[in-house]
Amino acid sequence: MKQEEQRATILGSDAAWPPWRRRLHEVIFEADTKAGLIFDAGLLLAIVASMLVVMLASIERFNTEYRSALDTAEWFFTGLFTVEYVLRLASVRRPWRYATSFFGVIDLLSILPTWLGLFLHGAQSLMVVRTLRLLRAFRVFKMANYLVEGHVLMVALAKSRTKILVFLTAVLCAVVIAGALMYVIEGPENGFTSIPVSMYWAIVTITTVGYGDISPHTPLGQAIAALMMVLGYGVIAVPTGIVSAELAEAGRAESAAHAPVNSQHCPDCGLDRHDSDARFCRRCGHSLHT
Amino acid sequence: MKQEEQRATILGSDAAWPPWRRRLHEVIFEADTKAGLIFDAGLLLAIVASMLVVMLASIERFNTEYRSALDTAEWFFTGLFTVEYVLRLASVRRPWRYATSFFGVIDLLSILPTWLGLFLHGAQSLMVVRTLRLLRAFRVFKMANYLVEGHVLMVALAKSRTKILVFLTAVLCAVVIAGALMYVIEGPENGFTSIPVSMYWAIVTITTVGYGDISPHTPLGQAIAALMMVLGYGVIAVPTGIVSAELAEAGRAESAAHAPVNSQHCPDCGLDRHDSDARFCRRCGHSLHT
Amino acid sequence: MKQEEQRATILGSDAAWPPWRRRLHEVIFEADTKAGLIFDAGLLLAIVASMLVVMLASIERFNTEYRSALDTAEWFFTGLFTVEYVLRLASVRRPWRYATSFFGVIDLLSILPTWLGLFLHGAQSLMVVRTLRLLRAFRVFKMANYLVEGHVLMVALAKSRTKILVFLTAVLCAVVIAGALMYVIEGPENGFTSIPVSMYWAIVTITTVGYGDISPHTPLGQAIAALMMVLGYGVIAVPTGIVSAELAEAGRAESAAHAPVNSQHCPDCGLDRHDSDARFCRRCGHSLHT
Amino acid sequence: MKQEEQRATILGSDAAWPPWRRRLHEVIFEADTKAGLIFDAGLLLAIVASMLVVMLASIERFNTEYRSALDTAEWFFTGLFTVEYVLRLASVRRPWRYATSFFGVIDLLSILPTWLGLFLHGAQSLMVVRTLRLLRAFRVFKMANYLVEGHVLMVALAKSRTKILVFLTAVLCAVVIAGALMYVIEGPENGFTSIPVSMYWAIVTITTVGYGDISPHTPLGQAIAALMMVLGYGVIAVPTGIVSAELAEAGRAESAAHAPVNSQHCPDCGLDRHDSDARFCRRCGHSLHT
Repeated sequence: MKQEEQRATILGSDAAWPPWRRRLHEVIFEADTKAGLIFDAGLLLAIVASMLVVMLASIERFNTEYRSALDTAEWFFTGLFTVEYVLRLASVRRPWRYATSFFGVIDLLSILPTWLGLFLHGAQSLMVVRTLRLLRAFRVFKMANYLVEGHVLMVALAKSRTKILVFLTAVLCAVVIAGALMYVIEGPENGFTSIPVSMYWAIVTITTVGYGDISPHTPLGQAIAALMMVLGYGVIAVPTGIVSAELAEAGRAESAAHAPVNSQHCPDCGLDRHDSDARFCRRCGHSLHT
Repeated sequence: MKQEEQRATILGSDAAWPPWRRRLHEVIFEADTKAGLIFDAGLLLAIVASMLVVMLASIERFNTEYRSALDTAEWFFTGLFTVEYVLRLASVRRPWRYATSFFGVIDLLSILPTWLGLFLHGAQSLMVVRTLRLLRAFRVFKMANYLVEGHVLMVALAKSRTKILVFLTAVLCAVVIAGALMYVIEGPENGFTSIPVSMYWAIVTITTVGYGDISPHTPLGQAIAALMMVLGYGVIAVPTGIVSAELAEAGRAESAAHAPVNSQHCPDCGLDRHDSDARFCRRCGHSLHT
Repeated sequence: MKQEEQRATILGSDAAWPPWRRRLHEVIFEADTKAGLIFDAGLLLAIVASMLVVMLASIERFNTEYRSALDTAEWFFTGLFTVEYVLRLASVRRPWRYATSFFGVIDLLSILPTWLGLFLHGAQSLMVVRTLRLLRAFRVFKMANYLVEGHVLMVALAKSRTKILVFLTAVLCAVVIAGALMYVIEGPENGFTSIPVSMYWAIVTITTVGYGDISPHTPLGQAIAALMMVLGYGVIAVPTGIVSAELAEAGRAESAAHAPVNSQHCPDCGLDRHDSDARFCRRCGHSLHT
Repeated sequence: MKQEEQRATILGSDAAWPPWRRRLHEVIFEADTKAGLIFDAGLLLAIVASMLVVMLASIERFNTEYRSALDTAEWFFTGLFTVEYVLRLASVRRPWRYATSFFGVIDLLSILPTWLGLFLHGAQSLMVVRTLRLLRAFRVFKMANYLVEGHVLMVALAKSRTKILVFLTAVLCAVVIAGALMYVIEGPENGFTSIPVSMYWAIVTITTVGYGDISPHTPLGQAIAALMMVLGYGVIAVPTGIVSAELAEAGRAESAAHAPVNSQHCPDCGLDRHDSDARFCRRCGHSLHT
């Protein structure tokens, strides 16, 4: 109780953001209090369970046999997520900022299809957008450890961005040229029905996926395909080399400065990932509880 | 003989663990005496031979032609492994600890199916669990050299565990999203009969396996598949980069401190991998022979 | 105006290369003045649009339905590129040098097929050569940043050239040997109709593309194929390791000397990539505008 | 002439190895005199040409149309290689040592099939062994540059041998276990006709080749296959990481001591790759010409 008052003093009194909404924000958006962790874990479970319902409903046999049970489960989860969405809107200080944020839009999109399904036929198939909510899983794993590791990966990828872009442009040119060439050589009678289809084949080949739904049949086409594969084989080394070199560098830098990280979520502007000794949000200056 | 007495003095006299069981333990569990090495090599041969029998029995033609010979061989190996299992139980100081250890459970499981086959029809097919005994092969290769190399690999993998977990979670999210998307776009008429099947296709594609049993047929589906492949192509670089960087680090650390290793197996608690100058187990303090 | 005169003084007066051609050269060949950047971006757009027309024309349905529209678009782009080609010839100081350069030949080849199509039937299919013009895309991205990154990639690849050549020769030998072997083992009845076809299969397998249009059916053939795959799996590590090691080195060297780069195009000899403080071409000594 | 005499003095007089055989040895086995280089290049051309003849003969259409021409060519090359083999035997000091060496056996095997074909029907198909002669190609590229690079690759691979062996054993265990499991789950009705065939499928899958000739059809089988692919995807990182780390180390060591290498072939014991200042073979002490 005392701690509670102390925090209130730090935060200052704020007519537009009464204590009950602050408490709610703490439970719903934070993952470092006990109540917050339980809420997040429960939410993740609900997301996974609702995904399983969507998956089962997509299987013909289940859909016909357990129709009513699946429908009930779907409406149950839609109701749950609708309540959660309203609570989220209520708890944040600036609802509009949340509603237009990445997760705000996804949260809305994940409940809309079921509601729209009442008026529009076929809207339910849009429910797959709910899968994007899985990205919230990363919040539960929000221990400093995972954050740092994920951060190292991100930094390494961001640093190699330019190199990878140059590389992808080169690959794209190769795909267009190879696709056009094979369309002329193999032609529609061997499955290369148009240049876009040939390009699809070129990507399937150069990435070594190799479905085999389209494959060269003329000797010249096979020779060119073989050449492409060997080149692709050598070329696969390039992005790997780029990321390896960057990660080795990042690893060295990381061990030098192993800064601790704090997973607080600013109640005002929503900024994540503050330093562990931060008492105020570094973007909007709003106080954080500690 | 004298060496034998000397060892007895070091080990001390122990009513619950008479010398003949100690000798047996040495032969069965150790690989650094001559008798122990011969036992382990012979056991490995028996395991491989029994595996070959199971394999041959799975081939229709052999099963019908050489039925009785295969049955005889199977009972021979089951008998051999049963005797070995009893001897193992007899030789260790705490049989229960062995019986509940990883290899203890596998050793039991590898003989049970044949015995159960007497009462239950079809239990023989469980005999494939015997393949897990192949892991004992690593004991025969237990020269310090291999232990160190395997250890470096393990440490590098363990250190990159968190990074790889973050990476796999991201890949899983991508697979769920891509699977749901392709189910909506391609639909059951193109082989994407349900979301789980679509996810299976997404994994087959992103890992560049590409069976071709399911493949996109609509232009939009092919475009999304092509995008996935190119992303997967760039993404394959990430785990490679992680392990490369970690191994490079490990290699540097390893060459710094090339500690010799000893492959003794503690007769009391079963701990493996002691330092080369260890005379007592570092976990339970029981004396080791040297 | 004044800047213009100053430049003229630097360049010196030159009867064979009057100011209007210099201005034209600046617009067409340079990407660092505003006019030049607009020209290059517009050209890239025209190339991409003309490529899309060629692609659409290759799709049966579009070709029959929108025949006249596609024909018009094709002649429009051919006209545009013809004008551009003539302007390029007019603006450079030594037209012959441009006409015989890599891009000069491609620029000519990309307009020839449509003109030849008037006399020769089927020449249009050669229009795919126009895809090579996409390589001009790199000119638009010619900001110092991309140049440096691409340069690091190029240097790393050039340095590993010998190692990769040795590696490819070894792979080629393996492919010939495996192809010949599988032709003898599997034979024409299992799809291995000749040694060249077997070699095509070997390349498809060793690069892990795996179409499945040809696959071994005899037990011995499958065993050899499995061996090849495992070897190929280990072998894929080699080029990756080579490029990784080289890029790590290059990364270190790059951060040491981060030399700025200048994307000027020498009006006399056409040399690209001068140092940022260069006022004269380092190959032919012709002055560059700054 | 004078140089010749000088060399004779160094080599000493030797009744069993008269000068004409020494000259022959120099031409046939060395690649650093002009005559030797011409001989090796000519030989390589003959090998490639004879390979092409074997390849063309394997194509049904060519075999029936140009039968006599192909037969003539085959006998021509067999004659050529027979003469070469006899000359090789004549020129070396210890013919038996050459005849039992790796290349000696291959040289013999590459001419035997045609001769045997006179008595035995079908022996000609063994002619594919001739492909192994392509390995001689490396002799022509025997410039110090390639030798060093190939050597770095070899050393890096040799050093990672133990790690790669541990890795391959682990992969083999996984293949056996997965093969046995899938045989039980999918069964013969889905193409997994026996455990060896299941293992073949497991290798095709884990190496990401993915022919699709055998693929899981039951939901459980597909789930296990998906798990295997994801694991294999993570696992492909391991050998790459090993070789990368080793090559990076080798690269550092190489730049430190860039020792020049000499491609002489000892006329007595056949040892290759002497140091550049070597005047005597480091194995048998025989003098080398310089």
